[in-house]
Amino acid sequence: MTETLERPVGASTNPASETARHWLGAFGDALAQGDPAGAARLFTKTSFWRDLVAFTWNLKTVENPAGVEDMLRETLDHVVPSNFQLAEEAEEADGVVTAWFTFEIKVGRGEGLVRLKDGKAWTLLTALYELKGHEEPMAENRPMGAEHGVDPDRKAWVERREEELETLGYTKQPHTVIVGGGQGGIALGARLRQLGVPTIIVEKNDRPGDSWRNRYKTLCLHDPVWYDHLPYIPFPKNWPVFSPKDKIGDWLEMYTRVMELNYWSKTEATHARYNDEAGEWEVTVNRDGEEVVLRPKELVMATGMSGYPNIPNFKGQHIFKGEQQHSSEHRGPEGCEDKRVVVVGSNNSAHDICASLWEVGADVTMVQRSSTHVVQSDSLMEHGLGDLYSERAVRNGMTTHRADMIFASLPYRILHEFQTPIYDKIKKLDSDFYDALEEAGFMIDFGPDGSGLFMKYLRRGSGYYIDVGASQLIIDGKVKVARGQVVELTEDAVVLEDGTELPADLVIYATGYGSMNGWVAGLIDEATARKAGKVWGIGSDTRKDPGPWEGEQRNMWKPTQVDHLWFHGGNLHQSRHYSLYLALQLKARHEEIPTPVYGLQEVHHDGI
Amino acid sequence: MTETLERPVGASTNPASETARHWLGAFGDALAQGDPAGAARLFTKTSFWRDLVAFTWNLKTVENPAGVEDMLRETLDHVVPSNFQLAEEAEEADGVVTAWFTFEIKVGRGEGLVRLKDGKAWTLLTALYELKGHEEPMAENRPMGAEHGVDPDRKAWVERREEELETLGYTKQPHTVIVGGGQGGIALGARLRQLGVPTIIVEKNDRPGDSWRNRYKTLCLHDPVWYDHLPYIPFPKNWPVFSPKDKIGDWLEMYTRVMELNYWSKTEATHARYNDEAGEWEVTVNRDGEEVVLRPKELVMATGMSGYPNIPNFKGQHIFKGEQQHSSEHRGPEGCEDKRVVVVGSNNSAHDICASLWEVGADVTMVQRSSTHVVQSDSLMEHGLGDLYSERAVRNGMTTHRADMIFASLPYRILHEFQTPIYDKIKKLDSDFYDALEEAGFMIDFGPDGSGLFMKYLRRGSGYYIDVGASQLIIDGKVKVARGQVVELTEDAVVLEDGTELPADLVIYATGYGSMNGWVAGLIDEATARKAGKVWGIGSDTRKDPGPWEGEQRNMWKPTQVDHLWFHGGNLHQSRHYSLYLALQLKARHEEIPTPVYGLQEVHHDGI
Repeated sequence: MTETLERPVGASTNPASETARHWLGAFGDALAQGDPAGAARLFTKTSFWRDLVAFTWNLKTVENPAGVEDMLRETLDHVVPSNFQLAEEAEEADGVVTAWFTFEIKVGRGEGLVRLKDGKAWTLLTALYELKGHEEPMAENRPMGAEHGVDPDRKAWVERREEELETLGYTKQPHTVIVGGGQGGIALGARLRQLGVPTIIVEKNDRPGDSWRNRYKTLCLHDPVWYDHLPYIPFPKNWPVFSPKDKIGDWLEMYTRVMELNYWSKTEATHARYNDEAGEWEVTVNRDGEEVVLRPKELVMATGMSGYPNIPNFKGQHIFKGEQQHSSEHRGPEGCEDKRVVVVGSNNSAHDICASLWEVGADVTMVQRSSTHVVQSDSLMEHGLGDLYSERAVRNGMTTHRADMIFASLPYRILHEFQTPIYDKIKKLDSDFYDALEEAGFMIDFGPDGSGLFMKYLRRGSGYYIDVGASQLIIDGKVKVARGQVVELTEDAVVLEDGTELPADLVIYATGYGSMNGWVAGLIDEATARKAGKVWGIGSDTRKDPGPWEGEQRNMWKPTQVDHLWFHGGNLHQSRHYSLYLALQLKARHEEIPTPVYGLQEVHHDGI
Repeated sequence: MTETLERPVGASTNPASETARHWLGAFGDALAQGDPAGAARLFTKTSFWRDLVAFTWNLKTVENPAGVEDMLRETLDHVVPSNFQLAEEAEEADGVVTAWFTFEIKVGRGEGLVRLKDGKAWTLLTALYELKGHEEPMAENRPMGAEHGVDPDRKAWVERREEELETLGYTKQPHTVIVGGGQGGIALGARLRQLGVPTIIVEKNDRPGDSWRNRYKTLCLHDPVWYDHLPYIPFPKNWPVFSPKDKIGDWLEMYTRVMELNYWSKTEATHARYNDEAGEWEVTVNRDGEEVVLRPKELVMATGMSGYPNIPNFKGQHIFKGEQQHSSEHRGPEGCEDKRVVVVGSNNSAHDICASLWEVGADVTMVQRSSTHVVQSDSLMEHGLGDLYSERAVRNGMTTHRADMIFASLPYRILHEFQTPIYDKIKKLDSDFYDALEEAGFMIDFGPDGSGLFMKYLRRGSGYYIDVGASQLIIDGKVKVARGQVVELTEDAVVLEDGTELPADLVIYATGYGSMNGWVAGLIDEATARKAGKVWGIGSDTRKDPGPWEGEQRNMWKPTQVDHLWFHGGNLHQSRHYSLYLALQLKARHEEIPTPVYGLQEVHHDGI
């Protein structure tokens, strides 16, 4: 539950609340009367209803009265929504009334946020937060721990836990298997543990947190702490703004332990196939040398929002005498002190790697093949996240859940309209910085519509650098920049299209990753990967995010064209928030609650 | 800082606030004018001022205007208190105005709680919460984590941490050594880490949390979760009410890691002496086989609020053919299935052990040598703790810090007056339970003045059982009770003074522990232990807590008669709250801030 919902609001004379209460009443009535057209008339001509699982058993945005009406025609009968209540006083600003509310459906309880213009809904967010009869055991409902009274047959907590660790995956099968035990798998695992869904997380590394520990030494999170909380156990007040990688690794490790996750480390999923007859997956894993076949009902890929490394094919790669590695293989600058290093690529990883190489004294050149969006970390914190995720926001009463809901309530279709003014402001305030960078020969962009970092992240998950220092090295000429495409490698150099030869002992390809369904091709087969299709992006018809318009992130946290196959991940914010909706979808299936999906996405790109 | 202090209060017409503001103004003026007599006149004839470090560099309660005047005469000149401000609206109930306030002293900032009767102070609590210039790096002041910008000489977090782990205790000396790494040592260690005081915690067990893990299998905490939070990282909302011992063990282990404590496990402190010339301790420890001499300025005993086990001497102990063990040695009921077990003692441990033995089928007799205070866990939660530490309290806006401060504000001298009505109520509501227990031959008491559990805990740390099920076994005759003193052991029985012979294969002495300064005798020498004197108790002149009146817990969390030697511990609530004041005392010494102690306690009992 959210603190939003803990403040019931009685009658009041606040005009914004009156407006909101009136709309909620009319909307609730139309739904109760089974009147999709009537409900649709309560929306403005251009309007957006984003539903997270409550009405659609999907993550779905419908648009305009026609979209609302279609969705309700398909769902109203079985959803049975009711009891729409204002959760706190509404607010009005710039002619928009913003109101938080709660509601019920037949099988669960939801919360929502509506923005009204002239008394009609312009944006509506509805989100399921719990299933009736399956509320999380928290706060008032937390477990007792000790069973008072004495019972010769009772088992101590440690005995029950040990038994579970011994039997799950062997004599008892998990309902869900999560492949990948980074932050995404861990957050989802925690939600499922809380909901009582037997789950095993499979992770190839030795310990939880190793996916961070194994990266280069000076790496810190690029997002600030307020944005990065995990569910249930927020970072404490003394936590650094940008968590060093080993510290976040330790946190994930302890989190996995105290949340009692069934986390199989040193375990690699080698093959999976769906057994139609048995109605279950057969997931073969190698657990520290032992082959085990897991038979879950549901399979979640949480292998990171990226797929396999993209390694470009250049003429002459085989004759190059130095070392070549993808950025994902790079373990830090040790041993590179005297080397000439060419880093191909100009996004986050490329910058981080160049900076750490320069620190040890290497001779570093970054090859920029296309323009990059750069935003200074402080500016991003202040202007991009400050109202929702910052100490200032906390002081003003903003909670993580509320911030997540506000963020989720902005429809993807118009999200860039909210973002562009922020980046216009940053561009102006930091103009000296951008001028200096361009003067150093670095190509800057702010996205195809000037909407900046978060839209690039949502659309393609790449194309940007959050500047934590490397840009100054470029400005100062300490990290050299070469522009243009690579045409070939010689024995000891990288050659660009304009003929420039960049002498190199080491070439690092910071050239990104394929779509996450690449992992499906490897684990299951290519046909299944094609059936599931490309993962990530919203169909914005911009670079690396081809149309048509999808409305939601492709394949993330929601049903796919492959039954019982799910994708989970994203940054810490997304892992935290969307793990709730994915967990509720899995829990409903575990409890055999009917989950008719409205608007299952079509596949427009195979992503292979 | 507390949320209490985050609500500044401007002018208001609330009459309670007016009264409080008037008193704070007059009190602040008298202090500013260096007028102890004038300040003393602002207290009622019978009144109590409890100071936690702010005025006294001590934990000290002075009584009545005369006590106030004496304390201020000694302290006012160097403390320089100022800026007394109401922190939130005051409240009035039953003729008592209660007000939260903030203030400053020359070197720090404090918070307080005053209760006024007829415009004069009846109880006053003043507590230091931070030293100026040494505020904890939290919230707005949290560390950045990443150092933006690039620096060839910078070290990654993990490198700095590894260097600290390698050097501290060897080439660099800690300022403070804490002997004992249970919850007490860990909480204090966390405070000191936050304050930047180099500290090593020495713990003989293999892992943090083992002091819990090593106890019997079904043990759960007897205090509820709301009472048990550690500083900085509260238990999450899904944490059980009564934490199973292994789960709290895991929590302590992860806490130690993520709070980055320098925790030397597998390490036993074997000897300590104070080197007067060098002005430092020499603490010899055996670290997993390696002898290391630590040279801290300050030494903290955090070995549990109990000292060495009390093992009674009975005639015939050497001829008894079965096994004898102290409760601290008892590892659980395994192997006792067919045994006749006599448990000598009738407090918490005795009950827990009897219940777990009965569960496996042992034949169990408890020997009750004197009456026991019993209170059912649910009643204690509801009536004893509910207003301050419960989900209900949380719902009503109570925070842990606020609850701790309220609890601390009730003077020990009159605390029993607040407690007795609670236990009168419990006695009445649970009269059937108490009647049945007495009918089963069990002797009940409610403390010498009917003040119940918490007063027994403060006075003697023993003499009670929080019933989580064993009492019903006694009522049902499943655990047998024998009353009276033990006179001897035969080859196969325990013999009581009335001639009763209790056949036994195993005798367990649940006979408690000596004073904590027993550890000092073992680690340093007996003379030092006698000089420090008895630890625990308040001089209530009741059983096991001889007078004269001390006013505060003997030797706990404050300066002792042995310079640079400190005692820390208590239950989780006390470890959490009082670790702040002990940490501030140690930090001040670390920074060489003058710390003139007012009213250093005298030793009335050597505790040996």
